[in-house]
Amino acid sequence: MIVPIEIRQPEFKRYDITIDTLPKLHYDRKVAIVTNTTVAPLHLARVMERLEAPQIEVIELPDGEEFKTMETVLSILDRLFEARYDRSSLLIALGGGVIGDMTGFASSLYQRGIGFVQMPTTLLSQVDASVGGKTGVNNRWGKNLVGAFYQPEAVYIDPAFLETLPEREYAAGIAEVVKMAVMFDRDFFDFLEKSDLKAPETAVEMIARSVSLKADVVNRDEKEAGVRAVLNYGHTFGHVIENETGYARYLHGEAVAIGMVMANELAVDLGQLSREEAERIRVLLEKWGLPTRYRVENPEAFYEHFFLDKKSRNNRIKFILPGGSIGSYVMRDDIPKAQVLKALERFRES
Amino acid sequence: MIVPIEIRQPEFKRYDITIDTLPKLHYDRKVAIVTNTTVAPLHLARVMERLEAPQIEVIELPDGEEFKTMETVLSILDRLFEARYDRSSLLIALGGGVIGDMTGFASSLYQRGIGFVQMPTTLLSQVDASVGGKTGVNNRWGKNLVGAFYQPEAVYIDPAFLETLPEREYAAGIAEVVKMAVMFDRDFFDFLEKSDLKAPETAVEMIARSVSLKADVVNRDEKEAGVRAVLNYGHTFGHVIENETGYARYLHGEAVAIGMVMANELAVDLGQLSREEAERIRVLLEKWGLPTRYRVENPEAFYEHFFLDKKSRNNRIKFILPGGSIGSYVMRDDIPKAQVLKALERFRES
Repeated sequence: MIVPIEIRQPEFKRYDITIDTLPKLHYDRKVAIVTNTTVAPLHLARVMERLEAPQIEVIELPDGEEFKTMETVLSILDRLFEARYDRSSLLIALGGGVIGDMTGFASSLYQRGIGFVQMPTTLLSQVDASVGGKTGVNNRWGKNLVGAFYQPEAVYIDPAFLETLPEREYAAGIAEVVKMAVMFDRDFFDFLEKSDLKAPETAVEMIARSVSLKADVVNRDEKEAGVRAVLNYGHTFGHVIENETGYARYLHGEAVAIGMVMANELAVDLGQLSREEAERIRVLLEKWGLPTRYRVENPEAFYEHFFLDKKSRNNRIKFILPGGSIGSYVMRDDIPKAQVLKALERFRES
Repeated sequence: MIVPIEIRQPEFKRYDITIDTLPKLHYDRKVAIVTNTTVAPLHLARVMERLEAPQIEVIELPDGEEFKTMETVLSILDRLFEARYDRSSLLIALGGGVIGDMTGFASSLYQRGIGFVQMPTTLLSQVDASVGGKTGVNNRWGKNLVGAFYQPEAVYIDPAFLETLPEREYAAGIAEVVKMAVMFDRDFFDFLEKSDLKAPETAVEMIARSVSLKADVVNRDEKEAGVRAVLNYGHTFGHVIENETGYARYLHGEAVAIGMVMANELAVDLGQLSREEAERIRVLLEKWGLPTRYRVENPEAFYEHFFLDKKSRNNRIKFILPGGSIGSYVMRDDIPKAQVLKALERFRES
């Protein structure tokens, strides 16, 4: 006998991303703010000032990707159990991507899921981690290998968070914004070229357009299987660069900037992008002080590195490239190795 | 600026529960079977015989609720990473509820979610854990306090699994079946009274009706907030009994059987159930050798124990009772303490 089971789910998970001065927040639930030792001195007072709840715990973690582990997440859960938090309690992630990923993951686990609110403080986490629901931790086998898909119930992006962000980290966030524009929205690319992205109003518009684009991609992924992979533009090359340099020399966004320039070289060779538009992208990245050069000592070795990435299955590398011009994309897994090596050769002396 | 985000989800998660001799299963993905030292000698050969996959790992855990911990789940993940399993890999849970809960949880975590298949070997896990998606582990603060909601992609219930199940465990599963019938389906209760539930065809029908009823409850919970709590009929009292007896004297289903009889005493007093129908329920449970008596030494202390349960918020205990007769339910949080003590008094000498 076969019993077909259909578990009904809400068709949408809805939440608002508020890009504005942090409003007064009144919760009738216990709240725990998860933050780190770098962010707390800068922004915790501002959040506490605006927050009302029957109980507020602050969980301050050490700062750094090396603490993005299951042990840290379990320590968050321990704190919540000790304070007798229940299923109606709420976590607030105050910090960058590492804090957001761990807080979201802890929220998904605690009593099989409690609410969480994101207050991303870096440009990168504002544009990237606010949408998509990816949470998780690293382990000795790699990054983000253990985690959950879990959506926040609200995201608050206070432009004041950005005032204390180092210039270099701001630029690293811009790299992901440029990625979205090159792949999906030519008009947005024009906007990025001509705007002062440090000016508060322009920053707000940039963030709003980025998160809308990303939400659109995440939703299309349902029907258009794999379109979410387009978000890896610049990342296929970038991951190898990060790996070759021991995750020490470049911020993630910086490696992605170089990776986009590399992908563009390949795209130009394949007729997927004009040389002129490749230059426009390079110039925009350099305007933000992002690196666009990287010395590939051994193209063959660089190529072999692609296969260590968890995204390359069946020995086929999926390259994400502009799809003819800025504002469109193509996914190709049929590019001959020689073609890729030819593009990498150009970075030998760079 | 406020950007509304809507993340689209499939409206249903669909899977089949096949209640029949285990079919031949061909997977073109790597498979890991998670089982324990009690179940493996009984059923592993049968499963291996019918299973084809490019790689099959067997992860054999120690048997027992005390191993239902995060450490055990992390050890499952470690084995998968060591064997280089990827996002397309599949876990098979071969065992009772503990194995199912941990395997489902591990599946939800590995690379943010891989497929899993349930092969529940106890009647309790067949009727209870096959539907609902609750996975997780215990910790020093309580049971199932860390976990995820995660659906299997298929459930296979081979009646042969039941042949080796001790009589007492079979009866404990029956208690949960009786619970479903008393709450939701009078006709099903009649069927249980008049059928030989050990006969294979009748067992198959009993399991099929139970899982269908549970799927219906889980889906109604969307609209009818909290109807899922009805599944706690017998559990509110049962948990206290399990706790008072150190989780040692009774199987969970046995404590639930006593709990239902206690709830029924309260229901009779409140006019929610006739004495005659309360007797029918008691007789059916006793026919299976299930306990229906328990000596409440101190009704006042028993009552206080309700408040240690994570389900009783705001100092109000929600009692799930028959709603006038067998086949219907009522949820009440307005029952005076004196009324409950009066019902408990009757168990002082039992």
